[in-house]
Amino acid sequence: MEQRISLITLGVSDVARARAFYEALGWRGQEVEETVFFQAGGLALVLWGREKLARDCGLGDRGEAGFGGIALAYNVRSAAEVDDLLATAERVGGTVTKPAVTNSLGFYSGVFVDPDGHPWEVAHNPGFALAEDGSITIPDFSDL
Amino acid sequence: MEQRISLITLGVSDVARARAFYEALGWRGQEVEETVFFQAGGLALVLWGREKLARDCGLGDRGEAGFGGIALAYNVRSAAEVDDLLATAERVGGTVTKPAVTNSLGFYSGVFVDPDGHPWEVAHNPGFALAEDGSITIPDFSDL
Repeated sequence: MEQRISLITLGVSDVARARAFYEALGWRGQEVEETVFFQAGGLALVLWGREKLARDCGLGDRGEAGFGGIALAYNVRSAAEVDDLLATAERVGGTVTKPAVTNSLGFYSGVFVDPDGHPWEVAHNPGFALAEDGSITIPDFSDL
Repeated sequence: MEQRISLITLGVSDVARARAFYEALGWRGQEVEETVFFQAGGLALVLWGREKLARDCGLGDRGEAGFGGIALAYNVRSAAEVDDLLATAERVGGTVTKPAVTNSLGFYSGVFVDPDGHPWEVAHNPGFALAEDGSITIPDFSDL
């Protein structure tokens, strides 16, 4: 297996509502057959009906409430950007579940969930190099 | 918000077991403070304790059984590679929850879950261009 991911699919209860939320945050996608595809660097973020996605995985759904086991993260270039994005997410239909704080590792982050409860950590972490194109590079921890 | 993702963190009950599973599939990562980072193109796949991740998101855990709401996908270059990877995943501690079939859209895919129940769809989908570096490009559906 090569070390890469092709798609991240978020199960959603209302595709139109979910699309509107991500578009309000600035994302632009294409919809085909009740599925929305957002190109995100070399992979795609996909919105699809939660029941269909569970069935397609051969899994029973454990329900939407609470933590589902996976969190996405979005790194930004300043602490002010963290605050701005959390405020925007809240304004357009998300919920801030953890207000931004500086954590024990010294970086500043908070978490919002989208309208379907999928968590996004928004972080300003100077330790992870953020390229102009938005890609990140994990540092060599043996050098630290 | 720029259209990108920095990290995907999988909550796991046993970091060593989860790391061993991904390494058996060919991934190579770095571990620091009970957290494993795998560079994957311009983002990182991260393994971290499920309870810590839930708490860090400000969310209560709904439990591990069944579908958590998000699926990852890994596109490959042939149907044979789909079969090979599903067999390998099963052999090293994963579980195939959907054997590979050709679906109604004409592409061949199946699903395995990792030892913590996180689903990976393995797909051969000639409609999504797969570059030499493994990145994918969503087609312009308006042209189809």
